[in-house]
Amino acid sequence: MADKSEKMKARLPRGLVDRGADDIRAVEKMMATIRSVYELYGFEPVDQPLIEYTDALGKFLPDQDRPNEGVFSFQDDDDQWLSLRYDLTAPMARFVAENFERLPKPYRSYRSGWVFRNEKPGPGRFRQFMQFDADTVGTPGVAADAEMAMMMADVMEALGIKRGDYVIRVNNRKVLDGVLEAIGLGGNENAGRRLQVLRAIDKLDKLGAHGVFELLGEGRRDESGDFTKGAGLDGRQIDVVLGFLLEDIKTAWLADQRRLPKEEFLELWGDDLEHIWLADVDPDKATEKLSKFCSDWLGVDLNTPLRDGLQELQQIAKLCSFAGYEGNRIRIDPSVVRGLEYYTGPVYEAELLAEIPNEEGKIVRFGSVGGGGRYDGLVSRFRGEPVPATGFSIGVSRLMTALKNLGKLDTSDVIAPVVVLTMDKDTESLGRYQKMVAELRAAGIRSEMYLGGAGMKAQLKYADRRGSPVAIIQGGDERAKGEVQIKDLIEGARMSAEIADNAEWRAARPAQVTVAESELVAEVRKILAAQAEERARGK
Amino acid sequence: MADKSEKMKARLPRGLVDRGADDIRAVEKMMATIRSVYELYGFEPVDQPLIEYTDALGKFLPDQDRPNEGVFSFQDDDDQWLSLRYDLTAPMARFVAENFERLPKPYRSYRSGWVFRNEKPGPGRFRQFMQFDADTVGTPGVAADAEMAMMMADVMEALGIKRGDYVIRVNNRKVLDGVLEAIGLGGNENAGRRLQVLRAIDKLDKLGAHGVFELLGEGRRDESGDFTKGAGLDGRQIDVVLGFLLEDIKTAWLADQRRLPKEEFLELWGDDLEHIWLADVDPDKATEKLSKFCSDWLGVDLNTPLRDGLQELQQIAKLCSFAGYEGNRIRIDPSVVRGLEYYTGPVYEAELLAEIPNEEGKIVRFGSVGGGGRYDGLVSRFRGEPVPATGFSIGVSRLMTALKNLGKLDTSDVIAPVVVLTMDKDTESLGRYQKMVAELRAAGIRSEMYLGGAGMKAQLKYADRRGSPVAIIQGGDERAKGEVQIKDLIEGARMSAEIADNAEWRAARPAQVTVAESELVAEVRKILAAQAEERARGK
Repeated sequence: MADKSEKMKARLPRGLVDRGADDIRAVEKMMATIRSVYELYGFEPVDQPLIEYTDALGKFLPDQDRPNEGVFSFQDDDDQWLSLRYDLTAPMARFVAENFERLPKPYRSYRSGWVFRNEKPGPGRFRQFMQFDADTVGTPGVAADAEMAMMMADVMEALGIKRGDYVIRVNNRKVLDGVLEAIGLGGNENAGRRLQVLRAIDKLDKLGAHGVFELLGEGRRDESGDFTKGAGLDGRQIDVVLGFLLEDIKTAWLADQRRLPKEEFLELWGDDLEHIWLADVDPDKATEKLSKFCSDWLGVDLNTPLRDGLQELQQIAKLCSFAGYEGNRIRIDPSVVRGLEYYTGPVYEAELLAEIPNEEGKIVRFGSVGGGGRYDGLVSRFRGEPVPATGFSIGVSRLMTALKNLGKLDTSDVIAPVVVLTMDKDTESLGRYQKMVAELRAAGIRSEMYLGGAGMKAQLKYADRRGSPVAIIQGGDERAKGEVQIKDLIEGARMSAEIADNAEWRAARPAQVTVAESELVAEVRKILAAQAEERARGK
Repeated sequence: MADKSEKMKARLPRGLVDRGADDIRAVEKMMATIRSVYELYGFEPVDQPLIEYTDALGKFLPDQDRPNEGVFSFQDDDDQWLSLRYDLTAPMARFVAENFERLPKPYRSYRSGWVFRNEKPGPGRFRQFMQFDADTVGTPGVAADAEMAMMMADVMEALGIKRGDYVIRVNNRKVLDGVLEAIGLGGNENAGRRLQVLRAIDKLDKLGAHGVFELLGEGRRDESGDFTKGAGLDGRQIDVVLGFLLEDIKTAWLADQRRLPKEEFLELWGDDLEHIWLADVDPDKATEKLSKFCSDWLGVDLNTPLRDGLQELQQIAKLCSFAGYEGNRIRIDPSVVRGLEYYTGPVYEAELLAEIPNEEGKIVRFGSVGGGGRYDGLVSRFRGEPVPATGFSIGVSRLMTALKNLGKLDTSDVIAPVVVLTMDKDTESLGRYQKMVAELRAAGIRSEMYLGGAGMKAQLKYADRRGSPVAIIQGGDERAKGEVQIKDLIEGARMSAEIADNAEWRAARPAQVTVAESELVAEVRKILAAQAEERARGK
């Protein structure tokens, strides 16, 4: 046998985890629900392998022949670089481009699976995690984006999250592009800095307005002393960017910058500005209002991307409102940016408003569980023609954690197996026990024969560890009489826990009975039914 | 937009494939059935990540610091080698070893997922494929192996494969070890040659007795001219090895080698030998018989592994027979070896006997769809103490192919979405169409709004390509009247295909109706019900 001194260490690489029964069952249940919504919307399943050519994923380092360090990569026999997918969108884009002619267009598809990030893992940040995506390829109209937002809202409600406990926030990259253009960050040469601004805004949730302010400017030193270099915007530029964030932050910020009392600022603007994004505002009036806000408060012109962005957002708001999705379900919110650089139009994010304990046990608003946006460039990279597309991704593990905390993924209906104890280990006896489990299974009763070498006490402990509802015992004496002992382990545990007189219970439902072997299945079924009834009563 | 001259090629690396809706749905259905059997037997889901330390998978090249070429490997930040798992067993062994103290023992678990082989792909051979495993860790008794064989049989029947159309073949590595020891191939120094012999026998299905004979000896040249070096056994050694194969092959072989007519050989042995493996034969008599066969025909002694192997096989046969699994479901068969080197005891294989067209369209017996065996060394590598284990793996794609061919994975109950055409594209009109789909979905009817830019004819073509049952049309005229047109696309297609007079049909069920908008859901529901009824009648 193995030599103790040479034995290998059983351990997992950082950022990877095993999944237990509860998590797997909860995820199965959740994914079945999500799938049913995607299907209801007419999406079809299709999936791609986990390995792609690195260039197809767009993951080469700039000006180098080596893949980006953020992806797991390796060379094939013919020296071509392969990578593990880092999301489901890039492989889907490759698939659609490769099969473009034969697919119905617009092409509506969904897929789920593992994706990989070769990044520093942390609490709640893994190097392998699961996503569940839906995408529509081949339509430029924002009706497709509106549909995505509605479908996310329907997914949330199908999972049991009440209206008001979630919100789908929608924004448009064009608005941000317009803002960036207005402060002189347009053009290819500023792509890097634009991404920095975008990532800074994306941290609003975590760092608050002041943190974002620092990241937009010189940079920010966190509690641990680590310094993150900022985007290097000057005061006026930061002003304009922050002027487009969340209403309350913007209000406070602008009032503060103008050394105006917040009340005075609000009096000047009322909450009119907030309303320009809403469905029922006349488009011309909204545009006029935004234009005035830009010139009066930010000192910039209403440029084309800003105007287009506003118009598209209004269209989305209208479409959602028509279909019965009100503002507390889908809300236009200019602070949503999404971290990925490939978005080109509307972006959307599903946020859980419920307050749930986080990893450190602090009660916090749970936050984003998924999102997406329009990515008109991804498929066209392969096609050499415009192929507009939009889609979103649900973070499966994150959403599962939230739902478990909210009690929406109850898997307690899974009953542990009945255990047939093996009192004698000769082939003849084992054969008889084996016959009992076979009969129980044939009757649809989850059951197993104890397969270890231990004695009766340890076997009952095993049944207890498994959470078994019933144990079956047949020693030599019972066998001689053609009988079998059946232990109700749930009732047994309760009875031994109860201090009060339980004569009544004992009479009604004994924790152990002896019946003829032929009665085994019927008796076990009776006990399981009684346990089920009690569980139902207890709820 | 993208520049045509610089566009990237959309392609997949060799040996990897995309999966379409039919395959995904068929696999889901099949896996749900397999899962229900594993659950019924008391197994619990648990799964491991797709990346492991290369050493934990036991995949370093002999005497080198580089991983085996058969696995996809890459180095982590800290230079440690990582690999994609090549099966589900090695990661499971790592998991059990790592969590040994807290797991109930015996530990019964199941898992499914993608595994990867960095090998030359071929027809039906992929570099990424799916397995679905069940394992019991912590029990040395063959009752656990017998249970695996029975569970495989139950899986086959749960999937709709009739008794007689499949067989679970069981053998024992100890029998083969005994044979190899008898011909002087025992000991660590012969491990490599033993593996060669094993792989040669594993090819019996494909190459027949003569092909195996060549691979056991000098080697074999295939039709393409490629030469595979053999195990280098001499005539007497080959004789002994082949003497333990399938009854009919052995019989023919031995008779031929002894220059005896087959009839005379059979008269000398009857079919007694075949029966030594059966449950109802007295163990002492069976041992005596095997001993005589070894000395008389093979010129070797009945050594300990042979004797133990025989005994264990008899126990398995008895346990299966007791539980009602007869010889046409689970059969002892000394030709089963399984290609993996880590097996240490009983091995088993599920074979489909049904004759199905293969990749080249030839009708062939489908063959193995899964198998496994006892691997007492895998977990103990990490523990430094014996940890016996047994389990099997189902090749998901292969089994799915077989079941689809057998018509056991019908997914035609999935109905394509109702398509609401978008006759006008202004936001107001789109909003109204959006409201219609929202109402249909709220009624549980799979539906979508057409999101492309095309005109009516192309939209109907799209609905046709999707296989949609119904199309909804509302132009300006209908909108003014508060009406909507509903097209029954199934009926429409049939009517245009029918040449005979169909006035009767037309009266009974028109292909197109116009109803008030408020009647939309009710009318669509009516049409879908009529279509379902017709499908049921057609079957």
